[in-house]
Formats: sequence, structure tokens, C-alpha cells
Amino acid sequence: MHVRLLRLLRDEGPLSRAELAARLDVPRPRLLAELDRLVAAGQVAEAGPAQSRGGRRSTLVELNPEIRYAGVDLGATSIDVEITDGRLEPVAAYSEPADIRSGPKATLHRVNELLAKAKAEGCFSRLDGIGIGVPGPVSFRDGLPVSPPIMPGWDRYPVRELLTREHGCPAVVDNDVNIMAVGERHGGVAHSVDNFLFVKIGTGIGCGIYLNGAVYRGSDGCAGDIGHIQVDPAGPVCTCGNHGCLEAVFSGGALAREATAAARSGASPALAERLAANGAVTALDVAAGAAEGDVACIQLIRDGGRRVGAVLASLVSFVNPSLIVIGGGLAQLGHVMLAEIRSVVYKRSLPLATGNLPLVLSELGSRAGVAGAALLASEIAFEQAS
Amino acid sequence: MHVRLLRLLRDEGPLSRAELAARLDVPRPRLLAELDRLVAAGQVAEAGPAQSRGGRRSTLVELNPEIRYAGVDLGATSIDVEITDGRLEPVAAYSEPADIRSGPKATLHRVNELLAKAKAEGCFSRLDGIGIGVPGPVSFRDGLPVSPPIMPGWDRYPVRELLTREHGCPAVVDNDVNIMAVGERHGGVAHSVDNFLFVKIGTGIGCGIYLNGAVYRGSDGCAGDIGHIQVDPAGPVCTCGNHGCLEAVFSGGALAREATAAARSGASPALAERLAANGAVTALDVAAGAAEGDVACIQLIRDGGRRVGAVLASLVSFVNPSLIVIGGGLAQLGHVMLAEIRSVVYKRSLPLATGNLPLVLSELGSRAGVAGAALLASEIAFEQAS
Repeated sequence: MHVRLLRLLRDEGPLSRAELAARLDVPRPRLLAELDRLVAAGQVAEAGPAQSRGGRRSTLVELNPEIRYAGVDLGATSIDVEITDGRLEPVAAYSEPADIRSGPKATLHRVNELLAKAKAEGCFSRLDGIGIGVPGPVSFRDGLPVSPPIMPGWDRYPVRELLTREHGCPAVVDNDVNIMAVGERHGGVAHSVDNFLFVKIGTGIGCGIYLNGAVYRGSDGCAGDIGHIQVDPAGPVCTCGNHGCLEAVFSGGALAREATAAARSGASPALAERLAANGAVTALDVAAGAAEGDVACIQLIRDGGRRVGAVLASLVSFVNPSLIVIGGGLAQLGHVMLAEIRSVVYKRSLPLATGNLPLVLSELGSRAGVAGAALLASEIAFEQAS
Repeated sequence: MHVRLLRLLRDEGPLSRAELAARLDVPRPRLLAELDRLVAAGQVAEAGPAQSRGGRRSTLVELNPEIRYAGVDLGATSIDVEITDGRLEPVAAYSEPADIRSGPKATLHRVNELLAKAKAEGCFSRLDGIGIGVPGPVSFRDGLPVSPPIMPGWDRYPVRELLTREHGCPAVVDNDVNIMAVGERHGGVAHSVDNFLFVKIGTGIGCGIYLNGAVYRGSDGCAGDIGHIQVDPAGPVCTCGNHGCLEAVFSGGALAREATAAARSGASPALAERLAANGAVTALDVAAGAAEGDVACIQLIRDGGRRVGAVLASLVSFVNPSLIVIGGGLAQLGHVMLAEIRSVVYKRSLPLATGNLPLVLSELGSRAGVAGAALLASEIAFEQAS
């Protein structure tokens, strides 16, 4: 019962004992005993009187206001940290560039430094749980990365164990796209949706899979690795060694490469201007160029959207989801990309599967990962609060 | 508890009361009360004395030997029926050609006639449950087909309700590929595997999806519809109106068409001979030709296997399953097809996902569907036996 009780207080805020007993469908004496236990354990606190409806005044209970979770999102080139309170509201956030290839020791050292900084700034006195996402396959059960292609030195590195030891609280490790899907389902556009795909388009491309109300991680923790689906047998060589993988054709790196070519060839005046000014062009320059109406930029985004759409059309036929959410850095390519993806998916997949299938941008944007990691942290903390 | 108890007796046969109490982890008095209730309800029977191990003789209990389930597999062009006992062992089987396009009334009438024939032949006095698979999307909850593309007249036809009324027992309706996956997991090569794909290659192509130990059916009951994934934008027009769908390029019909062309052009002496003898060639002729070493036949199968392999490689990256089972009529193309599928999947998908991924032929073959339907019938009967 205690996990359901703590979830209610997390997701709905202060509640009266009467309401809790009714919502959890447990006898009042059992609820009161459980609350006493959770107060003693520092999980729950009195929250003052409820609004009077006449009759005896009821007092509210809430999660201990001092509860703090840390959500950490390790990207290929960034570290994002968010400290939240028990209700998962952000208390502080830190973000900085980093290279995941610098290895687990250096990276986790930097994570610990950021957490120490948050503590020094008064964000928390102790952490109740840490959730961390990494850009590669994870054994969720064991709490460590498994054969991650772009994370040299991280294979089976005991991330969960080290974080738990360092911070004296439960920790949970998941794939970076899974935590984004979790975040979007708890506090974003996928709220309460049971079957949906969260497609991250950034440095790489990956897919978080929510089926029957839970993240589906696959037999080896590498489900959702759609970046290496082949979309063009004659396409460029991918980092994985195959030809024409989706992320070799369209992702942050691929788009920057094509944008540079379009700038140099003169096909795109907007990109040529930016290349001259900054010495390089990135995916964001393509987004800016498209917003200015640069035809070559719009075409680059459309071509990419079509590639992503073709892969998603297959996955829609296979999964029959209720929703697709597009997130990650390239979600900033916005409506032009989304329109192209939609057009291909709606045209290619069966009408029954697309009859009621919203295809939308992430609502949480760059916060999706840390928000999901903090949610997972609260879940593991609840489970261990017995 | 009663569902777990009945499942144990179904899957393991006669057990002593002591063993049942231990396996179910319930106190003996509660078990005995439950057994009395199930005996009175005609579900369970005494099975004579257990082998003595010294001490007091224990008696065994078993499922009532008169329990009978019907598993029905409606294909595009066939009706298969199997009657099983409570342990899902076949008691009788019937199979005949049929056209699903003749509509639900005529088709279900024929199913009822086959069941009446089984009854007249003494297979059963009453049925305890019926499971039926249909070649199209199904609302599992409502027990009826939903917008099935190749089943005119079946949309939302109350199949479950009519079967229940006609036979006075619980009934369950599912997609034909799902029941094959269920059958293979219970009594075949996928025994106890939690994450696997069952790929049916026959008149059409579909995929049964087993995730986290349960069939995944999708938001609208059409998950696994991989036959309409596009594999060749320049390919032939499919029945769905799009170009180059997998089943437009490789399935029973597509293979017969290409085999006919190979027979006429003289590319395949083996097929030319069969065309001359029979006036037509089918997928089975291609299998026979390949077995004789006919180069064109082998090439046709390889080309098809490559197409299927490309789609499965994408799905492996997405699902990260522990096993892939190939079934359906074209599974008879056997090793040549399987070798080609394997070659593409192992080459294209990430090493982590394919490191331990058996890709095998169905063990139950043409029985997979009826076996799975009978299992679903037993499950629904157990649930309603309370």
C-alpha cells in the first residue's frame, strides 16, 4: 500500500486522511498506522488543516517537504542535472557540455561535483533518490550500461552501485531515451497514455517504448534502437559499420554535414552566410534558415522528416500505438519536420492504426530526460521506503 | 487462486493435494475447500491414488477428464478445428478449404457444422470453451473483428457473443497470428520465452508479438501488421493501395506470381514442368523445385528471405527480442529461406541484440493456430469458473 500512498501524495499533493483512505480503499486504522510509520521514516509530514466543510476539522498530510530527488541526463555531449522536491517540481537545474567518451570516472566525478554544488547552494541537505540516464543500452535490473557503442569504458561499469554508495540513497540507471519517455508520460504530452513511442532525434536517434503502461526495455536493454534501421542501402556508412542507417542519413551530425555542403555549394544562401560568419554550421542553423524561408534548409528538413517518417510508418504498423512524441535536439526543426513525418506515416500505415494517432512534439523539451530520471528516482525511493 | 490451480493441473497433469498446496503456497484447508468447490463445478476430479512413498496414501486430483476445448483457426482460405481435452491434448482435428470472404454467417455456420460433427462422432458431450482466430485485427476486449481488410462483412460482427450463445460456453476471439504465437509459446519452440516474435508467412504476412510474457495487441488490436511495411518503393501495388509492401513482394500470392513468370520464361525448368503438368504453380512448387536444386527456385526463395530479413532486422533493433519463430504456409520453404533471413538479421542488427537471438522455424507448424486458440479457450474458461 505504501507505494500507492506515496505516489498519490507525489502526484496530487496534500490530501486529508479521509480522502487517502477512500482513494486507496483501505480501512482507516490501517491507513493511520501506515502514515505513522511513514512519518517516522521521514517520508510524510503533517500539512496543516484542510479547508473546513463544517464538522470536525481534518488535517492534511503531504510528502515531507525536505524530500529531494536528483534527475541526471547524460547525453553524448552534455550533462543535465535537475534537483526536484517530492512532488517532482524543479528546485534547481544545472547543464554543461561534456564528452561521454571521457569515460565513467571523469563523467560521474563531474556529476558528483554538480550535486555537491547544488548541496552547497542549499538545494538539499540529503538526497532521497537519484535517477540517471545514459546514451546507450542498460541492464535496468543490474543498474549498469551494457555494451554501449558510443560510451568507451562504460561497459558494465557499476553506475548504480557507485551513486548509491556516494550519496547514501537509492539510485536507478536507465537509457537516456527511456527516461525522456518516462518524463513525458508523467508530466508532458503523453500523460497517462499507455501505448506510445517517444522518438528522440538528436546526436543519435532512439525510441522510448511505452507498452501496456510500462517502459518496454527488451531482452538485453537495447529495445528502441531505431537509429540503426537501414533506410537507404546506398546511403553513407554509419558509425556501426552498416550502410544507410537512419541516423547516418538524418541526425545532428548528418544534418550538419549536409548543411555544410549546401553552404559551400551555394545552394543555401542562409547557410552560406552562417558558415562565413561562424566557420561552421549546425542543425540549429538549418532550423533558423528554414524559419527565414531558405528553400534548401526547408528541403533538408523535409528530406530528413521523410526518412524518419518511413521508419515510423513501419513501427506504427508493428506497434499500433496511441501516440507518437518527437523530442531531442532536432525537435527544434519544428513544424516542417513534423508535417513531413506525419504525411509519410498517415499515408503508409494502415487506416485502422492511424485513424486516431496524434504525432506531436515533446512538451517538456530539453527537460524531459531529467524529469523522467527524477520520477524513476522517486519510484525506487518509494519501493525502498518499506 | 483457482486459475493458478487449474493451470497447474492443465500444464502438469494429476497432482497430489500436498503438492498442490506446496506449489500454490496456500494453507491446506483453503486448498481443500477450493478443490471441493471445483469438483462440484465439474472442473476437477479425483484421479486415483498417488504412488505410495510409505506412510499414508495420498490421492491425486486432475482436471475433469471430460473437459473439452475447441480451437478454431480461420485463415483467408481455410478452416481448421481442433478439439482438445483439458490438458490441451488433441482429441480430434478437422480441416477444410473455405473463403473468409464468404462472410461471417456462412463461415461460422460451417464452423458450427464441424463442431456438430465432432460431437456426433463422440468427441465431446459439451464444450467448456472455444477459442477462435481470424485473419484480421480484433478487439480482444469486445470479442469481435475490427475493420479487417480482407474479411468483407465481418467488421464488428459479434463472433464471441454468437459462439457463446450457440455452444453455451465461454469463447474468445483473437487475431490468427496471435493464436499461433500463443500456441508456440505454450507447446512449441517458444516455451516460456517472454519476449519473442512469431512471424507468419502465408497468404499474407503478420507478426505475433509476445512482450514481458503476454501477447501485445496494440491500441486498436492491429499490432504486428508487418505485411504492409514498405520494402521497395518501386515495388508492385499491394491490396492496401500502397507500393512495395512486404506481402506484395513476398507472400503466397506474390511467390506464385513470380514462379509462374519463371516457369513461362524458361528460367526454371522445374517450375516449367509443373506448370505444364498442373496448369498452375504455387509456392509449394517453388519449395519442391528448390529441394531438387532448381537454381531459379532457390533464388526466388532467397530474394524473399532477404526481404523478410530486412524487415525483421528493423524489428530486432526496435524490440530486442530473445527469439524469432517463423511459421505459416511458406515456412515450408524451410532452410534456404531461414538461412537468408538469418544472414540479413545478423548482419544488420546491432551485435548486442543478435548476440543470443535464435531464429527458428515453428515447431507446431500448421497446428500452432488451433493449439493457441484452445489454450486461450482454457484460460477464459478458468477465469469464468469462479
